[in-house]
Amino acid sequence: MAQIEAFSAVEVIVSKRDKKILSDLQIDWVIDAYTRGVVADEQMSALLMAILLNGMNSHEISRWTDAMINSGERMNWSMLDRPTVDKHSTGGVGDKITLPLAPLVAACGGAVPQLSGRGLGHTGGTLDKLESIPGWRASLSNKEMLAVLQSCGAVICAAGAGLAPADKKLYALRDVTATVEAIPLIASSIMSKKIAEGTSALVLDVKTGIGAFMPDPERARELAHTMVGLGKRAGVKTRALVTAMDVPLGLTAGNALEVRESVEVLAGAGPADIVELTLILAREMLDAAGVKGKDPEIALRDGSAMDVWRAMIKAQGGDPDATLPRANEQAVFVAAESGTMLSMDAMKVGIATWRLGAGRSRQGETVQAGAGIEIHCKPGEKIVQGAPIFTLHTDTPERFGRAIEILSDAVVIGDLPTGGKVERLPLILDRIVD
Amino acid sequence: MAQIEAFSAVEVIVSKRDKKILSDLQIDWVIDAYTRGVVADEQMSALLMAILLNGMNSHEISRWTDAMINSGERMNWSMLDRPTVDKHSTGGVGDKITLPLAPLVAACGGAVPQLSGRGLGHTGGTLDKLESIPGWRASLSNKEMLAVLQSCGAVICAAGAGLAPADKKLYALRDVTATVEAIPLIASSIMSKKIAEGTSALVLDVKTGIGAFMPDPERARELAHTMVGLGKRAGVKTRALVTAMDVPLGLTAGNALEVRESVEVLAGAGPADIVELTLILAREMLDAAGVKGKDPEIALRDGSAMDVWRAMIKAQGGDPDATLPRANEQAVFVAAESGTMLSMDAMKVGIATWRLGAGRSRQGETVQAGAGIEIHCKPGEKIVQGAPIFTLHTDTPERFGRAIEILSDAVVIGDLPTGGKVERLPLILDRIVD
Repeated sequence: MAQIEAFSAVEVIVSKRDKKILSDLQIDWVIDAYTRGVVADEQMSALLMAILLNGMNSHEISRWTDAMINSGERMNWSMLDRPTVDKHSTGGVGDKITLPLAPLVAACGGAVPQLSGRGLGHTGGTLDKLESIPGWRASLSNKEMLAVLQSCGAVICAAGAGLAPADKKLYALRDVTATVEAIPLIASSIMSKKIAEGTSALVLDVKTGIGAFMPDPERARELAHTMVGLGKRAGVKTRALVTAMDVPLGLTAGNALEVRESVEVLAGAGPADIVELTLILAREMLDAAGVKGKDPEIALRDGSAMDVWRAMIKAQGGDPDATLPRANEQAVFVAAESGTMLSMDAMKVGIATWRLGAGRSRQGETVQAGAGIEIHCKPGEKIVQGAPIFTLHTDTPERFGRAIEILSDAVVIGDLPTGGKVERLPLILDRIVD
Repeated sequence: MAQIEAFSAVEVIVSKRDKKILSDLQIDWVIDAYTRGVVADEQMSALLMAILLNGMNSHEISRWTDAMINSGERMNWSMLDRPTVDKHSTGGVGDKITLPLAPLVAACGGAVPQLSGRGLGHTGGTLDKLESIPGWRASLSNKEMLAVLQSCGAVICAAGAGLAPADKKLYALRDVTATVEAIPLIASSIMSKKIAEGTSALVLDVKTGIGAFMPDPERARELAHTMVGLGKRAGVKTRALVTAMDVPLGLTAGNALEVRESVEVLAGAGPADIVELTLILAREMLDAAGVKGKDPEIALRDGSAMDVWRAMIKAQGGDPDATLPRANEQAVFVAAESGTMLSMDAMKVGIATWRLGAGRSRQGETVQAGAGIEIHCKPGEKIVQGAPIFTLHTDTPERFGRAIEILSDAVVIGDLPTGGKVERLPLILDRIVD
């Protein structure tokens, strides 16, 4: 029997076009009807553009988020004997923090049910990185996910088709209609998935700076506040850090290259900025989850975080001792002059990594496991003409040209003003607690 | 061979979303690529919403119009021995002016190559009205169109598929995505068809008031100025009248009912407002076309306009002497009280006419030839309780209920303030000449 529709798509679009507040019933209907295919893509994209340009208030955003959660299943981890806590990053170049962080928090007594995504554009995806480990698989049934979480304390896997299906459809549509950038749409997309995932606490890493989707710190702060508010309304203990993404994180960008660096961190070594941010986020997560008396720094040093990592990789079919894939071809990018490195543009490094084959231009493309960039020198360090700045990796050497083209603009070398320092964003710009 | 695209849809949408001016090349590409199916409906609707909310300047509107013209053929009437002149109305309730006007202007020495449309929503379409004449057909080949124009001096027919195909696609999309109301999109849609039609002079009747698509006179003026500017740039002698649509025009709304009233005007009778507006528009058209020394009032009186009408109807297979269809069922709506009629809401009369079966809710629906409303009393007239205000016609009497429901709110009867007059818009609010 045909369903009698409560609204027409046109009247909902007209409301937002004319700067009205959408009613709860309008929001519930339009998300449900879009999921059912009654509202067409061309109607939803007109509505999304009206939302991008005319905004939504906090109540509308909350209701929109709930409607997306209600479009699918909501997971439940109340059978676990530990508190659940998850982390989400809005994405940055070289941001592999999830890889050491999830086992580290598990080693300290949290349970981390992390549903992750694949990369699109200039930032990599956690699943793409882990898939460079021979044998590791991203897709788990809910039962398998629970088993890994119970045995290891952490699981990183792909979200199933049943989780916020409205968001999956909207995400693909926003990508082709230039409606990605709206804060209400970003916040509701992230939070609908994290709330449906069933975590009871959540730490958000909102990136800002030239290599982030939200380069303006004020907009990043607004996004962070919006998401913390959504978490609070849904009963999820949520806090957000606004963190620097002006320069790549760590010394690698790419899939297997970032796994290697993550394993170094878990072995008690690794680049200082990665270690620092991992520990800050781990402490936030443990605090949000109410886990007391554990020092994550010790869990890195004593090998307990590494033990969880190995168990977690094995539980999903991966071999933690396997040699990671290495790209067939390498090229070295050297300094054209001597001096101090004054800046390194994270966005340009991200695009170069993508161009080398580590990222994808459209959903469903395959990525190269070995492709990416090693960074040998970072802002503030002295460098001499001819010294290596980047080592580029790819299986398809015809890609070197366009990667080098953008890297040649990515780095500034010069004289430091007397007594001066290289200008950089602080690692943590802001902290928002509900 | 796959065509290499000059732009991506996303970058064009981003430009307008971010309030930039679209370049000529972006506009040319996006209209062409949309016509070819390379730009998808969901991308175009996002762009249309961004245009609606962020606007286009006069150069962008002109280029957008040209791109739509260039998506198809452009007709040419230079072989005629008379100057071509056409008229376009933005649509109103009871607006049947095209029917007497085209033969009247032809009788005075103009050539009228009128490509018309069908109705959608609360206003009727000229083709729907003419199709109530037994045998008359709207579709002509270009060759047939020329033959009717040469033999009769006027032709009213449907636009072929080759004329501004981009506009046809856009028009259908705007209807379902709440992007109809943007002045740049309305102006470019109307003017692309009229310029491609090949007329050398054009008079626009821009309706305003409660029964018009553009109820606010200021917005109607802005639309009129925009369209006159587009005509001027394209070398078409264009002028616009902004005219009243607060009260229905004439005493009928519906297809066959309006043909009957039009024939009365051609016979030298008919309601005063219809006759007055027909003569004003005829004089504007003759003046714009440079035809001098002909009085259209005489052409109505001496039967020469009626002769052209009869020839024109016959040339398209119609029988001008046939009895017009009459609906199977009638109902009379009477005055609930005595007094002066203070107002009649044109929009409500239009919607009631539509609900009786004279209009369509979506493209492709059939309409009833006999359905509609006769009006027995208009604002300013005295009426006694129980006297008929409307006679409703339909073939499907179950439609009476919802038509009467809206009509019961359409008329206000009361006491005229002492020495007062009924407030109405003047018939002509403004006149814009390039």
